[in-house]
Amino acid sequence: MVGETVENKQIIFKGYIQGTPKETDMELRVGKKMKMEAPKGSGSFLVKNLYLSCDPYMRGRMRDFHGSYIPPFLPGSVIEGFGVSKVINSDNPNLKPGDIVSGFTGWEEYTLIHKPEQLRKVEPDNMPLSYFIGLLGMPGFTAYVGFYEVCAPKKNEYVFVSAASGAVGQLVGQLAKLHGCYVVGSAGSSQKVDLLKHKLGFDEAFNYKEEPDLDAALKRYFPQGIDIYFENVGGSMLEAVLVNMRIHGRIAVCGMVSQQGMSDEKGIKNLFNLISKRVRMQGFLQHDYLHLFPSFLEKVGGLYKEGKITYLEDINEGLESGPSAFAGLFSGKNIGKQVICVAHE
Amino acid sequence: MVGETVENKQIIFKGYIQGTPKETDMELRVGKKMKMEAPKGSGSFLVKNLYLSCDPYMRGRMRDFHGSYIPPFLPGSVIEGFGVSKVINSDNPNLKPGDIVSGFTGWEEYTLIHKPEQLRKVEPDNMPLSYFIGLLGMPGFTAYVGFYEVCAPKKNEYVFVSAASGAVGQLVGQLAKLHGCYVVGSAGSSQKVDLLKHKLGFDEAFNYKEEPDLDAALKRYFPQGIDIYFENVGGSMLEAVLVNMRIHGRIAVCGMVSQQGMSDEKGIKNLFNLISKRVRMQGFLQHDYLHLFPSFLEKVGGLYKEGKITYLEDINEGLESGPSAFAGLFSGKNIGKQVICVAHE
Repeated sequence: MVGETVENKQIIFKGYIQGTPKETDMELRVGKKMKMEAPKGSGSFLVKNLYLSCDPYMRGRMRDFHGSYIPPFLPGSVIEGFGVSKVINSDNPNLKPGDIVSGFTGWEEYTLIHKPEQLRKVEPDNMPLSYFIGLLGMPGFTAYVGFYEVCAPKKNEYVFVSAASGAVGQLVGQLAKLHGCYVVGSAGSSQKVDLLKHKLGFDEAFNYKEEPDLDAALKRYFPQGIDIYFENVGGSMLEAVLVNMRIHGRIAVCGMVSQQGMSDEKGIKNLFNLISKRVRMQGFLQHDYLHLFPSFLEKVGGLYKEGKITYLEDINEGLESGPSAFAGLFSGKNIGKQVICVAHE
Repeated sequence: MVGETVENKQIIFKGYIQGTPKETDMELRVGKKMKMEAPKGSGSFLVKNLYLSCDPYMRGRMRDFHGSYIPPFLPGSVIEGFGVSKVINSDNPNLKPGDIVSGFTGWEEYTLIHKPEQLRKVEPDNMPLSYFIGLLGMPGFTAYVGFYEVCAPKKNEYVFVSAASGAVGQLVGQLAKLHGCYVVGSAGSSQKVDLLKHKLGFDEAFNYKEEPDLDAALKRYFPQGIDIYFENVGGSMLEAVLVNMRIHGRIAVCGMVSQQGMSDEKGIKNLFNLISKRVRMQGFLQHDYLHLFPSFLEKVGGLYKEGKITYLEDINEGLESGPSAFAGLFSGKNIGKQVICVAHE
């Protein structure tokens, strides 16, 4: 196959959006013919994309908003995101054909990687390859640094996780349980609530859509208040949590990023509780903690192999399923980490 | 005088309020006859109140809101607050007549103190007595722990202080300058702006009432962004600051407490900047740091005696001036720390 010329199927970002992403904001295109070769002297390498990741932060890249830590997508260009890929041809001395890499790639069948530093080689070690964009990738690492580094948890503390069955939340809850905390999660369907309680080991879980009064719901699950809130959603849930925080509580702010640049953003009330309860509210991004990545892989990979944690994935087959899978994130269609399988190997 | 019976003038809290405190929410009452004596065996002591403190947090005690760190005032009772007082008669072994104490007392001429732990003896050491409810009291200590402990400042950082000429802000700005930071303050009149720039040593200052676009004002004064925001006001200023924070910035949340329990509270937008800029927003109360009080007194008292810091006070004469002085806080009438002088000694 190396040296051949192929048609490369791609998912194209059509143009800047407002509001929630829709399937029609992206389209499948059969790209230009592409030569299956990394040009000599370029240091680049050619990969076949196997699994692509649908992550909420990508919504921020669909707006014409340049104030963020990552620039917007370019209209008419291939969507970019995390993926797990196999090296087909390499002009890079550190990679050879057959190597598995994870990092930034394109939503397409094949990608010529010009910035090798955007991906790292992974050792599958009998774990599912898709885990390297989930449990053992950015979402898992976000959970790991957010919980241990930002939340500074102590045994027996009361922990609340929103979007708890999602790519990040499900690991936060399990790490918190292993740490000796009491953990409650919220999610948007009874099926997810059931998974949280019976498969992921949360102490309690509730469907926020069935709670007309979130404050009352939190008081029911946390009569003593909340020490740690792993914030994935913003809005009225955050407002209700603020009222229920305990003294010296901590809020790790991980979600809300999808709201940036939205003109109809709703303000957050109840922030005065930060003072009366002396709460620390800390925004974070996993890429500030990359020095901890090796210890994360060792710890979380180890816990998985020991059967102490589990990880839910929602895998859609085929590159063409990408747009609907991505749009589905924002209505909570996915159960667990949303993955697109482009090719099995 | 000890053993005599006197009429005790008092300022009474009339009843729970909504909105901004008004002078008429309090009234002067000539209290019951009071014996100038601390009852034997009570451990109490009798003080003559010299200086009383008007602090914004007291507004929170005027509402029927019990979710805070301090309970509401009791309608029909004497207002309580920080004061500097002289011991007249004592049944407490640690205090003798003539001692000067500072801490919680009543808005009245004389107070029988039943909870000795609410006040501490102070050594005036040639400093103005009123400073023990200002520069060397709760507001000064709030500035000290808020700046050094919560903001974790580094030399050359960009610091913004709102309500910068107030009891807390004026010291924050001066400590930040001494720490080698670039400091800008906002205040609500040209006179205050002038004091900030020419008497308190701020690098720059602006009148927020003359800025139709706070975001634009902040971009003018902080083209590089803000590392540290000492937050005293909440609302639209906080929203504008959030947009202008630098990566790994810190917001010490000290104000806004006056908004708690308000039904018409406005939500705060732009919180997603906490994530993209990885900002730590930390509420705090000075009383969590009381172990640092001795080092605070030594450091700030020392800086004052060396002439390295100054402190602006707005002293109203007479207990009867209390209600209008307190109400004036909320329209920014005071210039510097608002004090009521009940008696000079």
